[in-house]
Amino acid sequence: MRLVQCACHQISANGFMALSPADMGYSSRPVPASAGPVDRAILEDLAAASRILADQGVVDAFGHVSMRHPARPDRFLMSRSLAPALVSADDIMEFDLDCEACEARGRSGFLERFIHGEIYKQRADVNSVVHSHSPSVIPFGLTGVPMRAMYHNAAFLAGGAPIFNIHDKFGATDMLVGNHQKGAELARILGQNPIALMRAHGSVATGPSLSIAVFRAVYTEVNARLQLQTHALAGGGLIAALDQEEGVKADAVNITSASRAWDLWKRRVGM
Amino acid sequence: MRLVQCACHQISANGFMALSPADMGYSSRPVPASAGPVDRAILEDLAAASRILADQGVVDAFGHVSMRHPARPDRFLMSRSLAPALVSADDIMEFDLDCEACEARGRSGFLERFIHGEIYKQRADVNSVVHSHSPSVIPFGLTGVPMRAMYHNAAFLAGGAPIFNIHDKFGATDMLVGNHQKGAELARILGQNPIALMRAHGSVATGPSLSIAVFRAVYTEVNARLQLQTHALAGGGLIAALDQEEGVKADAVNITSASRAWDLWKRRVGM
Amino acid sequence: MRLVQCACHQISANGFMALSPADMGYSSRPVPASAGPVDRAILEDLAAASRILADQGVVDAFGHVSMRHPARPDRFLMSRSLAPALVSADDIMEFDLDCEACEARGRSGFLERFIHGEIYKQRADVNSVVHSHSPSVIPFGLTGVPMRAMYHNAAFLAGGAPIFNIHDKFGATDMLVGNHQKGAELARILGQNPIALMRAHGSVATGPSLSIAVFRAVYTEVNARLQLQTHALAGGGLIAALDQEEGVKADAVNITSASRAWDLWKRRVGM
Amino acid sequence: MRLVQCACHQISANGFMALSPADMGYSSRPVPASAGPVDRAILEDLAAASRILADQGVVDAFGHVSMRHPARPDRFLMSRSLAPALVSADDIMEFDLDCEACEARGRSGFLERFIHGEIYKQRADVNSVVHSHSPSVIPFGLTGVPMRAMYHNAAFLAGGAPIFNIHDKFGATDMLVGNHQKGAELARILGQNPIALMRAHGSVATGPSLSIAVFRAVYTEVNARLQLQTHALAGGGLIAALDQEEGVKADAVNITSASRAWDLWKRRVGM
Repeated sequence: MRLVQCACHQISANGFMALSPADMGYSSRPVPASAGPVDRAILEDLAAASRILADQGVVDAFGHVSMRHPARPDRFLMSRSLAPALVSADDIMEFDLDCEACEARGRSGFLERFIHGEIYKQRADVNSVVHSHSPSVIPFGLTGVPMRAMYHNAAFLAGGAPIFNIHDKFGATDMLVGNHQKGAELARILGQNPIALMRAHGSVATGPSLSIAVFRAVYTEVNARLQLQTHALAGGGLIAALDQEEGVKADAVNITSASRAWDLWKRRVGM
Repeated sequence: MRLVQCACHQISANGFMALSPADMGYSSRPVPASAGPVDRAILEDLAAASRILADQGVVDAFGHVSMRHPARPDRFLMSRSLAPALVSADDIMEFDLDCEACEARGRSGFLERFIHGEIYKQRADVNSVVHSHSPSVIPFGLTGVPMRAMYHNAAFLAGGAPIFNIHDKFGATDMLVGNHQKGAELARILGQNPIALMRAHGSVATGPSLSIAVFRAVYTEVNARLQLQTHALAGGGLIAALDQEEGVKADAVNITSASRAWDLWKRRVGM
Repeated sequence: MRLVQCACHQISANGFMALSPADMGYSSRPVPASAGPVDRAILEDLAAASRILADQGVVDAFGHVSMRHPARPDRFLMSRSLAPALVSADDIMEFDLDCEACEARGRSGFLERFIHGEIYKQRADVNSVVHSHSPSVIPFGLTGVPMRAMYHNAAFLAGGAPIFNIHDKFGATDMLVGNHQKGAELARILGQNPIALMRAHGSVATGPSLSIAVFRAVYTEVNARLQLQTHALAGGGLIAALDQEEGVKADAVNITSASRAWDLWKRRVGM
Repeated sequence: MRLVQCACHQISANGFMALSPADMGYSSRPVPASAGPVDRAILEDLAAASRILADQGVVDAFGHVSMRHPARPDRFLMSRSLAPALVSADDIMEFDLDCEACEARGRSGFLERFIHGEIYKQRADVNSVVHSHSPSVIPFGLTGVPMRAMYHNAAFLAGGAPIFNIHDKFGATDMLVGNHQKGAELARILGQNPIALMRAHGSVATGPSLSIAVFRAVYTEVNARLQLQTHALAGGGLIAALDQEEGVKADAVNITSASRAWDLWKRRVGM
């Protein structure tokens, strides 16, 4: 039996709760083989993405971003468990899609890395995943008011965002997506959407590339803030949000112009 | 056929959508003649305006500001396609009112420069235009609640702000004002007003000078924030906004005192 | 005839509006005698107050603070017309209570210095005045929802704040308190209250000392923000604000503990 | 009779109000013995907690944090009366649970240190207390809308937070918890909850350790902001907040992962 160290350790040490082996991230599988070294610039981009999400107010001390391994679709890259603002390239670990670390070297992965692994399993088109508790998004996961695209920058939301309520399948939990089953169910609810909300927890943003996933995480938060205000202003009246056809067309442009944001944001975090 | 390079390039390269030649910014017109060199201080002011709009929260990675050429009313100056916070004097390009670059030198203009060119064509009194997605303004373009002047600094809004809904004339689009026809229609809706809202997109602010257009863009955002709060507090009751006569009188004073803001804002962005 | 230079100059130069001599700040009175030099530390405190108000978000490029002359109750000290964040001790001018500068030396006073002079005339207990357009306060001047004290720090609001609607006595104006008559009417509406709201304009805060006036200006803004949120949460239900007796008792303590805020705020603006 | 100097002094000097000896912090008890020197790293952590609360927007110029003495449960450590952003290790004083300073050395304790002492008396499980006026929490103390846990980070709120209305037992006061009786009543209302709200004043957060009390103070504010928005969005409809069982389970995980926030926050305040 092999152990990927994680925050759970401290739980049992402190005696606060009993956890099943699956919850604890224990595994009897052999250590997966690494897909080999990754270009340093890619690791630095992934670390920058983490700091960008902090700088843009999408994550605080919690939340994480990952990307599929550029050489092997059955591996992904993700920081060790650390506040996103502090991540640098040396903190990046490699995991297989079962979320086992290829070379842990004493580093602990995030408890909720299963969000990432299970989405990569089910969505071949997704090459990057962001999980956050960005504040303005939380109310939409709690009330059932459908999230819509308030402007073209958030065109990816024109088709709505499904809500994953962990209670539906797993009953009363600690709310965390801390094992394969929970991750797989979240990925199932996500379906073919770019975004899923998580009741009383946060959200997941996906994209075909790292910069697009980050772009979507940022503008999901911005759009949620706009929709909260628009909802209050409309007072029950109509909101002329993007329709689905507008959403598809505007999203295609966003995909090409997101690099303007990415370049600015990287510069803000010191790259 | 001449090509003004723009973000659209990447679209076709990525195969996301087919664009008409007009959408792509292609043109068979000859390269327009330059009106000649512009005083460096003017270019630096225009670049500062761009950074001011970012510093004041009016633009994020997107949005742009232009000014009419000081020597020739049928030319205007505007940054190449770049995040506003990063613009410096060397990024400023010259365009004719059909939005053709006089000397592109490999630089790409903004896809939506047609907003600027078409307004300059129709409004001889306008010498500067700002286009932004400033957040508090978006809800007013989505709900039809009329924007009003909450205080004297936003006196230019006392006459209201028309809403340009791109869907009315052009159906389901990517929402962007990416050709002459769309720019001309936006300018038509703007009419003689200083400000126009753009449904599910943003807004346009105009002025007789660069500093006044920037002043109006900033205080459109501030006023929108105030009106969102006032609307909620009033709960359907009366709001004692500026009436039109008060608006005309207060705007005249603002025109003279806006330089106090301009001087402060320039200093904040390092000038 | 003597001229106190002010922003109005530019108005007539630009031909935007005709102003009466009273509006223009012209006066045929002799230059008032100075009360003599003021301790440099006092001038620096007044300049710091100006920068503190900017740092705390109470003023942007507009707004001003004054204090009564420490040696002569019929004189007051106030910056020349300048963005508050930029004020230093050398910008402080001396005025008599008719708002004539004792030694203009080419410096322009604020157009609305009459707010200050007229309050000092009518309120012997007031030794400092702040005028601002602090954002959260504006809605209360527009809707007639009475401002109340949401917590002990804003105890000075437990007795409410009257609203000065310049339209009531002066009809459609440029909204500014730009002459003696308007200043006197504002002071009359203020009465014995510490705070007055100004419809579609801003507010005035007063105090027995510079630091208390600044404290009240800051916490009027903070309290307004709290009340906007409390009003929305209460949804028409009761709000257990401070009653008047609690307000008197808590304000007495605030007067003694405000120095803790003042010391912190001064340090933040570099003193 | 011995005197712990405090802000109250200035009150009587200024003649604003008469205070009872209990209100003034006078005591005829002998000076309590010190529990002996405390590890410098612990004092620095407590001072950092103070600056963290300022950096995270939980306190402004007012508010305080304390911790139980690591060697003696009948002593606690707390800064002298000072704006939280300015506290360093040398400002930490030692008090007995009756809030008498062991070695005042001319330093004044906070007027409201009785909040801390009385909670330590009644709650053996509590080793740290934060008192703040964090802005988003105030509305919940004024309206009776029950605070609930909007997401897992605020799981400690799943059981609700009682409201201490000082008026119920003490009538019209200056709102401050300035003596033993008021502190004891607040502690009684707090009961076994981690958080108590204080009507028209602020709140108290407690924890088994310094970092957990700070974590709870920060996320009480974040959660209140989220609930204000969720309440408005729900418009009277259901809010799928954490239930109590989810709250217990999620809080247990938070206890173990709060160190990730603590490490980040300490770094932000220069440690």
